Amino acid sequence: MVPIGRVKRVAAAVKRGGADALLVTQMADVRYLTGFTGSSAALIVRGSKVTLFIDGRYTTQAQQEVDGAEIVIVADKSLSLAACEWSVSQGVAKCGFDAGAITVAGLEALKAGLPAKIRKSFFVPMTGLVAGLREVKDEVEQDKMRAAAALGCKLFDQVLEHVVPGAPEMEVAMALEYMARLAGAESMSFASIVAGGERSALPHGKATTAKLPKRGFVVLDFGVVLDGYCSDMTRTVHMGPARRGEFDAYEAVLAAQMAGLAAVRAGVTAESVDAATRGSLEAAGLAEWFTHSTGHGVGIEIHESPRLGKKQESKLKAGMIVTIEPGVYFPGKYGIRIEDTVLVTAEGCEILTPTTKAWIEL
Amino acid sequence: MVPIGRVKRVAAAVKRGGADALLVTQMADVRYLTGFTGSSAALIVRGSKVTLFIDGRYTTQAQQEVDGAEIVIVADKSLSLAACEWSVSQGVAKCGFDAGAITVAGLEALKAGLPAKIRKSFFVPMTGLVAGLREVKDEVEQDKMRAAAALGCKLFDQVLEHVVPGAPEMEVAMALEYMARLAGAESMSFASIVAGGERSALPHGKATTAKLPKRGFVVLDFGVVLDGYCSDMTRTVHMGPARRGEFDAYEAVLAAQMAGLAAVRAGVTAESVDAATRGSLEAAGLAEWFTHSTGHGVGIEIHESPRLGKKQESKLKAGMIVTIEPGVYFPGKYGIRIEDTVLVTAEGCEILTPTTKAWIEL
Repeated sequence: MVPIGRVKRVAAAVKRGGADALLVTQMADVRYLTGFTGSSAALIVRGSKVTLFIDGRYTTQAQQEVDGAEIVIVADKSLSLAACEWSVSQGVAKCGFDAGAITVAGLEALKAGLPAKIRKSFFVPMTGLVAGLREVKDEVEQDKMRAAAALGCKLFDQVLEHVVPGAPEMEVAMALEYMARLAGAESMSFASIVAGGERSALPHGKATTAKLPKRGFVVLDFGVVLDGYCSDMTRTVHMGPARRGEFDAYEAVLAAQMAGLAAVRAGVTAESVDAATRGSLEAAGLAEWFTHSTGHGVGIEIHESPRLGKKQESKLKAGMIVTIEPGVYFPGKYGIRIEDTVLVTAEGCEILTPTTKAWIEL
Repeated sequence: MVPIGRVKRVAAAVKRGGADALLVTQMADVRYLTGFTGSSAALIVRGSKVTLFIDGRYTTQAQQEVDGAEIVIVADKSLSLAACEWSVSQGVAKCGFDAGAITVAGLEALKAGLPAKIRKSFFVPMTGLVAGLREVKDEVEQDKMRAAAALGCKLFDQVLEHVVPGAPEMEVAMALEYMARLAGAESMSFASIVAGGERSALPHGKATTAKLPKRGFVVLDFGVVLDGYCSDMTRTVHMGPARRGEFDAYEAVLAAQMAGLAAVRAGVTAESVDAATRGSLEAAGLAEWFTHSTGHGVGIEIHESPRLGKKQESKLKAGMIVTIEPGVYFPGKYGIRIEDTVLVTAEGCEILTPTTKAWIEL
């Protein structure tokens, strides 16, 4: 069923923005508003009415997945243009569009396809309108995120038996994905990061054929897509006993991560959470090695707004789901990152990834 | 090393288009011009000089991968805006940008970040300039594409032992990916299609937990990314003996695919190759079940221009690498697709995926 509550919130925002309808082209937004999981579509939201434009490949799939929206099959034409032409035929005079999703050339092509007297005033830029509403997850979404995160935690426990000295990083990543798919995941949220030894110092160390060390850190950062929603978690484990300084560095990252969690609650700014993790690492003399921001929203997409970083003055709201993931990276030596996904609440947060963060020595 | 020949071709096109420099933001274009494999960057091409703008996460990686370009580390700012500001500081008055890659809001943000007297005339739309040059592969690229395609063929032979009745499609896909990664592939070109029985009638039947049939077709459509270049091939095999009509349908698709191959050579239009496969299936009375276009360019990205479909009047050029992949799909029954990747030559084409297309019964 089309989630009518979400559609009504979109419709209200469109009206406030001075348009009669909204053209939606981002597939995550389309899925959010209709449940359609295909790879291309355009959508018109007009009041509480939703019309989905697809090509012939997706006829059966759309009929199965989308209940409560009109479906229009488009042949030999851009889906977005067909959606705009249809809107004009329905009397829409002002149509919002996501200026953060449609390219400069794409907008020109849409304008060129409409009658000259209409095209000038038809399009109203509304950047990230649906994405903005998606920041706060409704209860259905919160449950899906809990389920995805729980699967991620279960997989972490299971994959540890594959984390052995000499195993190619890639073998660990494949085992993870295999178990995830068997458990019903649609896919992974992103290419799994399994980075051992010196490679742990790469914040985005996607699994390679490099072998896990006998002694040293291994960063495991992965997520699954379950029922359309992404999980995301990172743990860093250690093969063999710690070398000098490694345990202290781990504890410093963990303290920073806990400081970040403690700073989360509805009403605080995104930058204040970043300042909490960064300040903690600064006190430990490690801030210069923390080279990325503290976290990001997560939901249908693995990276959503808000961003938890410097100069991010927007306030967290109850229902947002964000990651808290400080790390330190010593090039040529090692890196450590610890990440949870949390649901923002009025009083603080609910941790969706409760897997232990205590030092793990394998 | 920065491939200076490619940079010079870009620079010449930029100059012809009336700009002093080009802002490059598509990562496939960035990789093509610098070798950088990170997930975000901006690039300025100014004459034969290349300047790469990255954030701090990629410092080490960029130094390792990129030789011959200036590297600028950007903190707390959009990489594209930093690249534009730097260009202004270097005296660039007109800067080309890919209007098919930069969003309406993205361009507004860049303009807003530049001095008022500059922003009005600074940006010159140049849609798909680098992507257009990437259509024709140079010799280095041709060799990489040959190697990627050869790996794909080897994997097809190896994966057949996993194609057994009752095996989950996903298990075949995972075996394929596992072998691919062990053989050095960075990743798969796309989510592997393993579609058995009725599911073979889905043109995009990504592998699921559905089990392979005792008797019926299995479509295997997959590719690897090796050294930055994508392979792409499809074979359709049959479990058990053919049912009535199945062998004839297979032979009709194979004849269409051979007709497509025979139509390929430098100078013919893309639509004429599509007409060749479609005409062959029409003669067999099956054209209505061929619901997609004949093929597409392939290289750093799995789908590149040109598109080999109806109304595609552009001419093939020697050095283009395209797929030829007709198929027929009978909903609820079965589907068949056969796909090769070929290098266009003056006289015809070189088939990069020479795996047998004879009927395979498992």
